[in-house]
Order: sequence, then structure tokens, then C-alpha cells
Amino acid sequence: MPSAAVIGTGLIGASIGLALKSLGWSVQAWDPDRSALDVARGKGAIDEAAESAASAATDTDVVFLAGPLHANLDTLADLATPALVTDTTSVKAPFEAVGNVRFVGGHPMAGREHAGPSAASPALFRGATWVLCPNGADRSDVDYLAELVGAMGANPVVMSAARHDHVVAAISHVPHLIANALVNLVGNDPEASELVSGSFRDLTRVAAAESAWWPEVMASNSDAVDAALQKLIDELRSLQRMADANDLDGLEARLTNARDRRRAMAPPVSRVRVILQDRPGEIALVGHALEASKVDVRDLQLRHAPHGGGGVLTLSVRDGEEEALRAALAVEGFETE
Amino acid sequence: MPSAAVIGTGLIGASIGLALKSLGWSVQAWDPDRSALDVARGKGAIDEAAESAASAATDTDVVFLAGPLHANLDTLADLATPALVTDTTSVKAPFEAVGNVRFVGGHPMAGREHAGPSAASPALFRGATWVLCPNGADRSDVDYLAELVGAMGANPVVMSAARHDHVVAAISHVPHLIANALVNLVGNDPEASELVSGSFRDLTRVAAAESAWWPEVMASNSDAVDAALQKLIDELRSLQRMADANDLDGLEARLTNARDRRRAMAPPVSRVRVILQDRPGEIALVGHALEASKVDVRDLQLRHAPHGGGGVLTLSVRDGEEEALRAALAVEGFETE
Repeated sequence: MPSAAVIGTGLIGASIGLALKSLGWSVQAWDPDRSALDVARGKGAIDEAAESAASAATDTDVVFLAGPLHANLDTLADLATPALVTDTTSVKAPFEAVGNVRFVGGHPMAGREHAGPSAASPALFRGATWVLCPNGADRSDVDYLAELVGAMGANPVVMSAARHDHVVAAISHVPHLIANALVNLVGNDPEASELVSGSFRDLTRVAAAESAWWPEVMASNSDAVDAALQKLIDELRSLQRMADANDLDGLEARLTNARDRRRAMAPPVSRVRVILQDRPGEIALVGHALEASKVDVRDLQLRHAPHGGGGVLTLSVRDGEEEALRAALAVEGFETE
Repeated sequence: MPSAAVIGTGLIGASIGLALKSLGWSVQAWDPDRSALDVARGKGAIDEAAESAASAATDTDVVFLAGPLHANLDTLADLATPALVTDTTSVKAPFEAVGNVRFVGGHPMAGREHAGPSAASPALFRGATWVLCPNGADRSDVDYLAELVGAMGANPVVMSAARHDHVVAAISHVPHLIANALVNLVGNDPEASELVSGSFRDLTRVAAAESAWWPEVMASNSDAVDAALQKLIDELRSLQRMADANDLDGLEARLTNARDRRRAMAPPVSRVRVILQDRPGEIALVGHALEASKVDVRDLQLRHAPHGGGGVLTLSVRDGEEEALRAALAVEGFETE
């Protein structure tokens, strides 16, 4: 039976434990917070609570460092084990020069609104990207980890630590900053809060998540974040200058360019909008239609009238499957668009 | 039979026509683009195509100006009709000093990824906020319009034009700028595109929408947009300075503040995560459970593993209904979190 050590049993560590246990692994763990360890054991995420990180990492196949940034760095520096070691931190360059073990950096890009082992789930990594940074490790170690995180349901992507940190500054750290700044822009204005619609909610959703680890990660990646933020502000100022100068053609060209790029990021799907009446069982009828049509639903979005009056369910399906879905929905009496 | 005139039969105008027709109204319309008028008539959005805006607005109860900003302003300036006139433009102050008719400004906060009358729907406004700006109009006219847009499924909100423009700068125009700037930040980098996760997709979704009307609206609201953008950039710089100075406590406090505000914006819902296996009919079984539990689903989100392997369906239900839903899902054999 393969075995793993998990150092740090918060949301991510306990979820790794649950995922590994469901794959038949044995899991020993350590966390400086004894209660986090107890919760993880209570959830069945670990078999055994070790006395220290060092003892958990002795006589095991893979070590997951799943604590905050500074804790993972400290543990890695002290670790002496023949096992393959990886981590789960959102910034990767600081790990490059640390430690004397077989190490492959890792970053599972999955999270939830709430933190801690009580929110852990073996399904946390399903469909999520899990970045692996070889840092000069053997190809076989990288391949082994890629297969393991794939078995947990994640999609492994291999890149250098520098590249990872540059990319996450743009796609994660700066967006995080923006979400927070936007929420503070609207502030406590109740009228603005009443008006906030889908796009504002989309833009600020990440601000609602718990992220105690986040300031440390931001600070340690501040060069890349500064560069990305400066580029963003330059772009915003440039758009703003066009608006001030009433340069409508220039604005239109820039927007069209961004639109085409954004559309290229989404997988090719077709959307079917289902008009729902305000009566029980509507969603179940949609379910029947989905079953009958055998289409592959990629995304669902439901928009309700707040005070009753039905709603609209938008189903995204693979390109080419929309007609089969519409036909099946029509059989159940639904109007689609 | 009440009758309306719709001037401009793009997505919004044709959708208004469809919604009014479904309420039993007769609708006459005009658009400078004859083919837009033909498509709207072909969809059943209008009864009659008029020869001009003036002739459409003669002998009718309500006139909807649903063209671009400059067209709506021109039409309003020229209009002579005893009918109540409203518009659908995303910026409201420019309408305050124009025209000699009974006018209430309007802004239905609804849109779709694609423009034009062929994308029109009578359900477009369901659950959407529809701002009304009295501009000194009679209370009875404002109340009448509020009731009418409510009948179309929208939620009317009354405020001044200046207030509206200030609020939409912060919650719509600046977010729109940000979405575009963020997409351009990632640019054509294929590795970054591979890594973009939920939060980045959320933040940039609005950039994928067609918005030919948007540069004009931005330019006409540029004072409010400049002010909101400056406030946002100040906030971003301030967060960035904290990160550069390694002020982790300061960052944490600011993030916690934003988190609490953002959570207060969302209606109180509980989330139930349903683990889906990779087999046909799973969604139909969820539908059965929803039917049995009778809970009120407020939102649905589906996350698939891209290469099969099941997924996770997150159902948001009213606070207090989550246990009934979990129980019904358990009966169908689902594991929930």
C-alpha cells in the first residue's frame, strides 16, 4: 500500500488526505494545530497523526507540504527523507533554492469559500489545474506526481517556477486585488449594492473567499504582481484616455480585440436557454430532457426573478449538440431560445 | 388594447416588443435599419413597421427609445407626442435637458452575449434590475412604468439620473474596462490561457459580450468613470504598497473588510455540492431529488473534469433548506458536501 505524509491539514491538506485515502493510500499527517489534525482524522482524511513533520515524513513515499508559505519553506529546509517531496503553495520561486530532498513544486488551483479541514473534500481537485514545477527534478518524479494528481481528478500542467509566478500574478493575484478594490469602491452604498448585477458579482466573487494565506503569497510575489498591476493600470488609463477624447472607433477596436481573445479562452460551447415557469418540478423535467438527449452539459446557470415569476436556465453544451437538447426539451414542453 | 412604439429594434427593443406582445399589447416600431425591423417582425416582436420614428410615436400609449445613445437623444429632441416616453440607454444624465414630452429615463440592466433582434427574447428582463429616472416626471408616470417593467419580469428601481450614472460607473463601466484590460494582460499567452481558472473567467466574462453601444456610453459618462477609476487605482496602489512593504497584517485587515462587504451583497444562501459520477443520467437524478425536496434552487454551477471523470454540481438554496435537499439527494444515491 503506497503511503503519503501530509504536513498541514487545512482545507488543501485534508482534501489531499481524503483523495489519497479514496485511492487506497495510507496517510500520516502532522499540523502544529492539534485541533486541525483531530478534525482531519475525524473526517477520515488521515490514518495517523505524527508527532512532528520529520517523523511523518520518515518511511513514506510522497510528502505533501500543505501549510502556509513560510511553514512550507521551513519544513522543506529541515527535511531529510528519501521520499519525493512536493508542496501546494500559490507561489513557487521561493522553493527553488531550499532543501536537500527530491522536490517537485506543486500548486493545485482549487479552493473554496471556507477554509479549514472541516471544509475538506476528496473532490476538491476534480477538474482543477494542478501546476507542477520540476526545479531540476528527475523527469520520472515529475511524471509520477502528474499521474498521482491526475488520479485525484486534477489536470497537471508542468512549467518553471518563474513562469508560474509570472502567470499567476496576472491571472490570480492581480484579479484578487481588483476584486477587493472593486468591493471597496462600491463600499457600503446600499443603492449601488441593490444595482450590482451579474458582471459585478462575477468580478468580485473571489473577494468573498477566505484567504488567510493570501497576504503572504502576494508579498512574496510582489515583483511579478507590481509588473502585472502596472501593465493593467497602463491599459486602464489608455482606455480611459480614449473615452475622454471621445475616440469611439479606437475604443471599439480595443474592445473587439479583447472580446475575440476572451472568446478564444472559452471552450467552444453552444448555449440553450430554457424558460422555466414558476412551479415545482421544472428542474426535474429539464433533467429528464437531459437524460433523453444524452448531451454533455458543460455548464449551467440559473437566473431567477427574485420575487417569483419563473426564471431562465442557461445550459452550455458542446457545439453541435444544441439541436438534440432543444428537441428533447420540446418533448417535455419547454420553450427554448 | 394598450399600444407601444419601439424605436430601435436591436436586442433590447425587439425583446421589449416580445415582452409587451406576450402581455397583450400591440407594438409598432421603427428602425433606420430595415433588415432589423424585418427580423423583429419575423420573430413576432412587432405588429407593424412604421415609416418613421415620428409616425410610430403617433397615437400610442408608451414610446420606448431603444437605439444607441445618440439616436435616442436625437429622437427625443424631435419627438412631439402626448404618449409617455422612456428609453433604455445605459447612461442617463444626457437625457435630462432634452425634449418636450412626458419622459421618464430607463435602463434595463440585462444583456446577452450576442446583439441584434435575432437574439431577442421576451424573457430577457426576467430577474433583471430596470432603473427608472423620473427627471421631474409625474409620480403617476413613474409608477405606471414601474408596473409595466415589473410585468415584463424586471425589478424596477427608481433613482436620479446623476445617481444612476455615478453608480453604474463603479459597478458596470469600470468593471467593463477592467475585464478588457485583464484579457489584454494575459494576451495571447497560451500557457496563461491554459491556467486561467474560475476567478479569472468570472472577472473577464463580460469582455466576451458584444457591446457596440459601449464606447459611446463610456465616453458620455467619462467624468464619473474617471473618478471611479481613479479611486480604484488608488485602492490597488495602496494594497500593492502594503504587499511591497510586507505589511501582512494590514493586507489581511483590508481583505477581511472587503470579504465581509462582498458577502453582505449576496443573498443568504447555503451551498450543497453534489458529487457526480461520469455516467449518463446523473443530472436527471439530481432533478428527481430537487423535485422531491421541493427546495428553491437559487443558483447552479457545474464543474466538469475536462477529460471525463465526473464533476461537481454546486446547488445554492435558501438558508435552512439545505438539509432537505441533502436528504433527497441521498435517496438518489448521491454523495453531497
